[in-house]
Amino acid sequence: MSDLTALAERVRGAIPLTRHLDFSFTRWHPGDLLLAAPLAPNVNDKGTFFAGSQAALLTLGGWALTTLEGEARVPQVDVVAAESSLQYVAPLASDATLHIQASEDDLSRFARRLVRRGRARLAISATLSSPSGEIAARFTAHYLARDLSRPDGRVD
Amino acid sequence: MSDLTALAERVRGAIPLTRHLDFSFTRWHPGDLLLAAPLAPNVNDKGTFFAGSQAALLTLGGWALTTLEGEARVPQVDVVAAESSLQYVAPLASDATLHIQASEDDLSRFARRLVRRGRARLAISATLSSPSGEIAARFTAHYLARDLSRPDGRVD
Repeated sequence: MSDLTALAERVRGAIPLTRHLDFSFTRWHPGDLLLAAPLAPNVNDKGTFFAGSQAALLTLGGWALTTLEGEARVPQVDVVAAESSLQYVAPLASDATLHIQASEDDLSRFARRLVRRGRARLAISATLSSPSGEIAARFTAHYLARDLSRPDGRVD
Repeated sequence: MSDLTALAERVRGAIPLTRHLDFSFTRWHPGDLLLAAPLAPNVNDKGTFFAGSQAALLTLGGWALTTLEGEARVPQVDVVAAESSLQYVAPLASDATLHIQASEDDLSRFARRLVRRGRARLAISATLSSPSGEIAARFTAHYLARDLSRPDGRVD
């Protein structure tokens, strides 16, 4: 099973709301994660993509990229959202493609700190678009990762 | 049926994801809306309230307050989220209480513009807390309302 399929199964198993978002992870390259989600379960009263679904999917996408990057470097990682900003650019009357990214510099710093200190912060930027690329929302966020295999990385 | 019960039914009927958030509107006074949502359907992999559920519920709460305030002033209103910021303060291991507010000044300006111009913007601030008041998240957002009974308020 790929890292991506395994992570999607863990997420759906542990976080009930994510089953109803009907997301899938499409592709992961370092610093770059694609997700998809259909309109039907995420529709609003106007027949477009519900702003709350967009917020939940983007929050999940940033968490997933931080988790994948963390788990590529240390054995067991715990990731939480710290803060986020979301700008709704245009209504979306189709399925959604989410593109979640971390810059090369931020990713290097994150990896170095996570390995050395057992905890690190990652800045994420993301877009939520139609499958043909019209942007509906822009998102930035910070996530905190802790290496759970180290006593100082664990928070009880 | 109260405005609040009717709005909750409209939301659950038109926006499928909101059924799975299992929210309820508790109380509405001008500029002040309370919501509640249980932990179980919104839990994450750590046994605490999923950040994506928090984002979706806060987004819904701001939309609902703007809709209630708009519908108190014009016959038919359409509300969309414009932008939001969310700060996760502490994990929440209980049900959630959401307190959504608009200041008196912002609300007067919103009401005046909506009636005069057929469209207006409302600034919202909110907290998501445990039932005993420990704050888990702070949220600010802007919503746009349009009076659908006016031709210049309608966007197609």
